[in-house]
Formats: sequence, structure tokens, C-alpha cells
Amino acid sequence: MREVLLSTGDRVVLYDTSGPYTDPEVETDVRAGIAKLREPWIAARPRRTGSQDTQLSFARRGEITAEMEFIALREGVPVEKVRDEVAAGRAVIPANVRHPEIEPMVIGEAFLVKVNANIGNSAVTSSIEQEVEKMVWATRWGADTIMDLSTGRDIHQTREWILRNSPVPVGTVPIYQALEKVGGKVQDLSWEVYRDTVLEQCEQGVDYMTVHAGVRRDYVPLTARRKTGIVSRGGSILAAWMIAHGRENFLYDHFGELTAILREYDVTYSLGDGLRPGSIYDANDEAQLAELKTLGELGRIAREQDVQVMIEGPGHVPMHKIRENVELQKQLCDDAPFYTLGPLTTDIAPGYDHITSAIGAAMIGWYGTAMLCYVTPKEHLGLPDLEDVKQGMIAYKIAAHAADLAKGHPGAQAWDDALSDARFEFRWEDQFNLALDPQTARSFHDETLPAEPAKQAHFCSMCGPHFCSMRITHELRRMNDAEDAAGVVG
Amino acid sequence: MREVLLSTGDRVVLYDTSGPYTDPEVETDVRAGIAKLREPWIAARPRRTGSQDTQLSFARRGEITAEMEFIALREGVPVEKVRDEVAAGRAVIPANVRHPEIEPMVIGEAFLVKVNANIGNSAVTSSIEQEVEKMVWATRWGADTIMDLSTGRDIHQTREWILRNSPVPVGTVPIYQALEKVGGKVQDLSWEVYRDTVLEQCEQGVDYMTVHAGVRRDYVPLTARRKTGIVSRGGSILAAWMIAHGRENFLYDHFGELTAILREYDVTYSLGDGLRPGSIYDANDEAQLAELKTLGELGRIAREQDVQVMIEGPGHVPMHKIRENVELQKQLCDDAPFYTLGPLTTDIAPGYDHITSAIGAAMIGWYGTAMLCYVTPKEHLGLPDLEDVKQGMIAYKIAAHAADLAKGHPGAQAWDDALSDARFEFRWEDQFNLALDPQTARSFHDETLPAEPAKQAHFCSMCGPHFCSMRITHELRRMNDAEDAAGVVG
Ligand code: SF4
Ligand code: SF4
Repeated sequence: MREVLLSTGDRVVLYDTSGPYTDPEVETDVRAGIAKLREPWIAARPRRTGSQDTQLSFARRGEITAEMEFIALREGVPVEKVRDEVAAGRAVIPANVRHPEIEPMVIGEAFLVKVNANIGNSAVTSSIEQEVEKMVWATRWGADTIMDLSTGRDIHQTREWILRNSPVPVGTVPIYQALEKVGGKVQDLSWEVYRDTVLEQCEQGVDYMTVHAGVRRDYVPLTARRKTGIVSRGGSILAAWMIAHGRENFLYDHFGELTAILREYDVTYSLGDGLRPGSIYDANDEAQLAELKTLGELGRIAREQDVQVMIEGPGHVPMHKIRENVELQKQLCDDAPFYTLGPLTTDIAPGYDHITSAIGAAMIGWYGTAMLCYVTPKEHLGLPDLEDVKQGMIAYKIAAHAADLAKGHPGAQAWDDALSDARFEFRWEDQFNLALDPQTARSFHDETLPAEPAKQAHFCSMCGPHFCSMRITHELRRMNDAEDAAGVVG
Repeated sequence: MREVLLSTGDRVVLYDTSGPYTDPEVETDVRAGIAKLREPWIAARPRRTGSQDTQLSFARRGEITAEMEFIALREGVPVEKVRDEVAAGRAVIPANVRHPEIEPMVIGEAFLVKVNANIGNSAVTSSIEQEVEKMVWATRWGADTIMDLSTGRDIHQTREWILRNSPVPVGTVPIYQALEKVGGKVQDLSWEVYRDTVLEQCEQGVDYMTVHAGVRRDYVPLTARRKTGIVSRGGSILAAWMIAHGRENFLYDHFGELTAILREYDVTYSLGDGLRPGSIYDANDEAQLAELKTLGELGRIAREQDVQVMIEGPGHVPMHKIRENVELQKQLCDDAPFYTLGPLTTDIAPGYDHITSAIGAAMIGWYGTAMLCYVTPKEHLGLPDLEDVKQGMIAYKIAAHAADLAKGHPGAQAWDDALSDARFEFRWEDQFNLALDPQTARSFHDETLPAEPAKQAHFCSMCGPHFCSMRITHELRRMNDAEDAAGVVG
């Protein structure tokens, strides 16, 4: 949590994901990693014979974990609500028992809408240090989870550094590393290579994994008449593998085995939408919806084994087709938390897809999506740099908060109210400090009125002193009060 | 219209508002003004005795004007539809008979969603040349109308330059200049000063005027318990005047007279929402809705005199309260075109209100709003500069186009489809040229892969060559074709 001290003496408490990095009293050393908050909690737990407990199995037995307590405090809700939502499969707590560094968080419709930031190098660009820096940077701007999508060199090492330093849960897409292990040759992929990769990542502490087990062989022909084919990397890799081998998706065939591995570490499934639409034209088509149905079936199998499940969603969807995505997902996937990429509401603005998709993200969040995967301005064009990560995060924190307001999340509006009060009372410094991005708000104001007295001024350069409507409102309220005092009814 | 020539030889035709400024064959001279497209049309019209015809009176008599023909071509709709929507009061064609320079356009739910850009100096900053430059710049990025909100020095002169050089209709808020005329003293305002100001602006060629005639004396106390009072400049000025004088709004009292003046020039009313909410807390409150009802009544009076009418709307509104705004406006204002500012869907992000409001703008456009007034990143903080104008325009063109798609506007999706085709076929140059902002799209791509061959490459730096899902899709389609040819069913 972050406390903003106002000039009035009041304090506003905001949800904060940046862990020790914004705590002035904590020194962080990237080589040592951050403190292991969960270590004593995990150590204190009785290990059951046969298999590891998961947050889901605890919840189903009515037990409250330390993670749930932490979350209840953060979200400002009763801990029983956290437990019950997890037990019902409507919320997940991604928290690998091998990842003690994280501050636990919950993903579910009943809670604050979360934002995930994708980072990770590609073969073309970026280094380990840069990706760790991006992770810290993303949480500084409010990322609730991060996904390490590295596909280039040093995948294991990059992930190790990110895991040991991340205060938020970390997700991956194991098929990327599996493909690197077979030299990038899709046809050489196999269940065995994949399984070993998943084990390696579970051991390291990955909290949730995107698994494209729903891309079944029969669905691939459904994408033939699409404008943009298969745009999920994992989806396209598995489709190519199935065609090369003339066989069913090995992730589908081995789903039970895979589930048993994830259970051992309490790793959460993020069942990937390998056939999500990559253009407005392809939205809500047969391929997408066929896969969604399969994801629902797989989710039931996983939860039977006490493994937590989220379901991934699109993509590119025009506004009038967004609600259908949420309704179908709830119905087909038993209200498992929905985790969507955007969606982008138009294809015409490469370079601004953080905006085309913030529109869709805000709406889909309002309709019930639990976590939004951010899109940066570089989408479709290149690997995001630090500035892109920031712009993507800000657009998505706006979308998530707008959704929290629209859902009527208790407490969400307190932030807006505090900022509006500061604005109306011309407490400029308070307005800046409460802003999602204080530096930018301050620097925009200071571009035209940099002098210190302007921080108390009853106007800014937008309307100027004569036309400042808020200043005039104060004046007319004073006039009104004077009239009232004189007994003249205004 | 703008034609984009693709590398395939195909052409994509896009709606364009930039007039002669982007036509390489036309030289423009800001001192001479641009060509007077409408001059012969206006000259050829018979003047009826007693009073000037308006687009509305023509339409009501079933007559088709040259403006309607021009618009029908631009919008790709039958001219009868333009006429009928205008006749019904569901659409307006803001086109002062004294403003021959504009390329006519229509504002109505049945047509493409339009975007207005506010420009104009304030007492604190900016010059005439800068404001003309902003106007040209705003239309370059797609502004369908511009409002000159100048409040500083040289209001008349600034407006003259803008009018003589603008290819799009120009709106104003006459109370601003009226207030400057009385030295900024609200209590010295009068109907006479206001009327003379309106006449001066009508003569100059202003196409539509924001008139806050709906801020009635009885509504001011309804704002007392608001978080942010009255945030419309015009609204706060008139409220202060009413309290100072203990009298009804002079715009309400003289509305018939004012309407007669506007009719003479075919100036369109934009009935201002002086009591729009300035914060999430104040959204859809009693003050706002009381005024809206009055705007509906005033609209009926104006249309009886054949004066065209738009209705202005909020402001700050959380997502779940947006639809109610549109439904009430339609019902109370007889489907007159709605023209909204944003709305901002949260207050927490000063510096990014082009994004907080693009979310609301896209949604309200989908629900039926005819024109969106842009919000720039400087909202609440200062006067926008050229870069802010561009960022505001782009966010709003995205919102308007997303709304056109969601409304199922015929032809809207062709743009998305052309861009998605180019993307899937790795025609990078076509993708850039079709983008809303080609320069930015190209420069983002080139940041990591600047070399010329990368413009044909079947990947970019986002996923890299091994993981480019679109490249893999092409490969699997080839594999599939090979199998089909060999008689092996995949
Ligand atoms: S001048 Fe305008 S934007 Fe600035 S504080 Fe006053 S009302 Fe707000
Ligand atoms: S590398 Fe990724 S972002 Fe780039 S063209 Fe291929 S699929 Fe699109």
C-alpha cells in the first residue's frame, strides 16, 4: 500500500505493487534478490502425503492461508470472501511455493481489476539487465503481475533474475523455451521436451503458465479464411506442430500429466487462447469460440486436481462484440477468471494500440474480466522499451480503474474524489501527488506556469484567470453566502 | 477524400478533413485565405423575402442543397438520407452563409462520428499565428470541426484568420468575447453586449455557436453540493451573472431574438451544457439533468424557426453511467445531434485525459453521439500546444472510428481490413501508409529494424523471426496445401 499525504493533513491510501523498490527504507541488490516474504508461511505448512496443497485445496477445505490474509488486507475485503472466491474457482492466487519473494495478490471478478505487463527479450534485441529493469519499472507503474516472454538467448538466466527480484507473480509461456531447446525447429518439439521445460520453470518459481492446450487439431482449418490467421505465437507453433506430425496437440493429450506437475508447485494455469482474433475481421469467429469451449473443459479437469485456472481471451474485437466474449467465457468456463489482451477496438492505429486497446480493456474489465494484459504503443511494430512499458501501464491502469468504478468496487471512487477535491480547491501539489503519473501532471502544468506561486493560483493556463470556471464557482458561492447572510434569497 | 495507393496496386479511399493543405497541387497563403468553395452555391440561391433560408428550411421543403450533395459524396450515402436527417432535426450541417471556404460536413447519428478540436489562445499564452497553425494541424490529423475558444487579446483578429483559412466549420462560445468586451467584469455583461458580439461573429462567418441558455437561475443551487461546482466556463459566467443581478439568464430570456439572428446566417446552435459534471462524483446529477431538459425545450423553439440545433453533453462520467446520458438526451431533445466532451471515465490521470476520455468517447459514440469534442493530454493543466493537439486528435479519431465500427457504419471496416491485410502479408510500407499516423508507425518499427530489407521481412522485433506467429501461419498454410496436394488429409 502507498500513502499519499495531502496538504490538508489527510492521507489517501492507494494499492501499490512496487514492493520494496519504492520503500525508501529498503536497499535492494539485484544480485541478492529481494526479501522472501512468504518463506516462513510456506515453511509452516504441513505437507500432505502424496501431493502438495494448493491455495485452491486449502480454500476448498475452508482453510485460510497467510496469502489470503495478506490479500484481504490489500483489497480491503473480508478474508472469507477471498477464500470463498478461490474455492469456487472464480478467483486465483498465483503463488508458486518456490517463489517466496512475491506479495500475494488475487485475480477474480470480485476484486480490483488487475493489469499484467509483458516483458522479455526477443532474438532481435534486449539484455537480461534491461528486462529486470523493465520488470521493476512495470511494477513501479502498477503492474500486478508480469509475464516473462523471453525467446532469445539466456532464457533461463533472464527468468532467474526476474523471479528473484520480482515483488509480483511471474507468468511464462513454456513453449517458447521448449522451442529454443530444439533449436527453433517446430517439428522437433515433443511432450518430453515440453514437460522438462515446465519442470525447470516450476522449480525456479514461475507462478502461472500460459498453456495452449485448447488449440485442437480440428480447429486449425477453421482459421483458413481468416484475415490474419493465427496470431498467438504459442497457437501458431502448436498448429504447425500438429500439421507437421498429423497428430493432436500434445498439450491436450498430456493435460492430466501436466496438471499433476503444476499441482506440485501450486502453479496456476493460464489456459491460452491460441486462436484469438488478430484483426477486427476475425473477431468472435468459429475458431476462437471452438477453442474457448475446450478451455472450459480443460479448466474443469484442472480444478478437479485442485489446480487453479485462468482463461485467456482476445485480441482484436470491435466494441459491440466485446460483451459476448465475457458472457460466453463465463458460461463455457464456469466463471473462471478471464484474462484478456486488450482487446484492440480497431486495427487502424499502429503506434497507438495502447489507446485502441485501453478502450476495449476498460469495457471488458467492466463486464467482468479479472485481469487485463497491457498492450504498449509498440504492439505490431517492435519490442517495447522502458518508455513503451510506462505508456502501456498507464493506459491500462486507467482502464482497470475505470472498470473498478463502473463495477462499483467499494472504495475505488475514493481516489477520484480525493483528486477532484484537490483540483477544486486549487491544491495543485496534492493534485499532482494523487495523479497516476505525478511527474507528468506537474511538468505539463509547469510548461506554461513554472513559478512557485502558480502552485497556489486559482487558475491555470488552460482557461486563464478570467475564465477559470472553478475560480468563478468559488466566487459565486461566496456571493450566494453573502446574500443568504443578508436574507436575500438568490 | 484521401487516396492511399498500396503496393498491390489497390487504392483505399479515406475521409479527409485537411482541405487544400494536404493537396500538393494547391499553394496556400495564410494572408489570402483558402479558396471559397461554397461561394457560387450561395450566390445561386434565391433569397426568400423576410428571412434567409437555412439547410433545415431547404431540407424541410424537400430541397437538396449543394452542401448536401457534397456531403453525400463524402459519406458515401444517398443525398436523400442527408436531406431527410437534416429535415428531421437528427443531423445538422453547420455552414454559415458568410463562411464560403468550408468543405461542408454533416453531424448526426446516422453518419460517421465526427471529432471537434478546441483551439484558441488564453490570456496567459499563445499568439494568432500559433492558433492558425493549430487549426491547420488539427485538420491535418482529422478534425471535422474546430472551435476557436480564444479568450485573450485579439479575439476578433484571431478568429478572422482562422475563418478565412479553415476548410472545416468553425464554432465559438460568444460569451467569451462578450466578457472581454466588458473588461472581464461578469456583472457588466448584458444581453445587448452579447447580441452585438453574436452579430459580429455571424458576419465573420462562424458556423456554430455554443450558447448556455439552459443554465437557468433555479438550477444554480442544485450545484451547491457538488465536488467540482460548475466547470463550464460559460456556465460559471452566466451563473455568476444571475447571482449578481438576481435575475434569470439573459440568454434564456432573449432566446427567440437570438434565434432570429442565427437564422439570418444559418448559424447552428450548439446548446451548451453549462452544468456538465466536472468529476466522477458529480456525474448525472440533478443539476445536469435539469439543464438537459431545458436544452430540449430550447431546441424545439430553435427548430421551429428553422435554426439547426446540436446539444452538448458531459464531461466526467464513469462507464456505467454513459448510456443513460445518451438515452436521456435522445428522449428529452428529440434526437437532436449530441455533441459531447469526452466523457472522462476517471479523474485520477491528469496528463493522460486524452486516454481517460477516449474510452468514454468511443462508448458514447457507439451509443449514438454524433460528434466528440477532443480532450488533450493538457486538460486541467494548461493550454495545449501542437503536440497535445495531435495526441488529442489521434486518441479521438481512434474513438470515433471504433464507434463507427461498433455502430456498423457501412464502409467503416474497409480501413481496418485493408490494414490487417497489409499486416498479414508483411507489406510494411502499406501498413504504415494506412496507419492513422504513418510517421509514428514507421519510426516505431525502424527503432529496432531500420534497414530497408526489414520492410519486406516476415517478422519484426516484437516476436523475432522464430516466433513471428504470422510467419508461422503462412508456413502452416503452405504445409497444409502441400498435404492437400499429396492427398494426405491433415
Ligand atoms: S483555468 Fe480551467 S483548467 Fe485551469 S484550474 Fe481553472 S477551470 Fe481548471
Ligand atoms: S514478429 Fe510478431 S508483431 Fe512482428 S510481424 Fe510477426 S507476429 Fe507481428
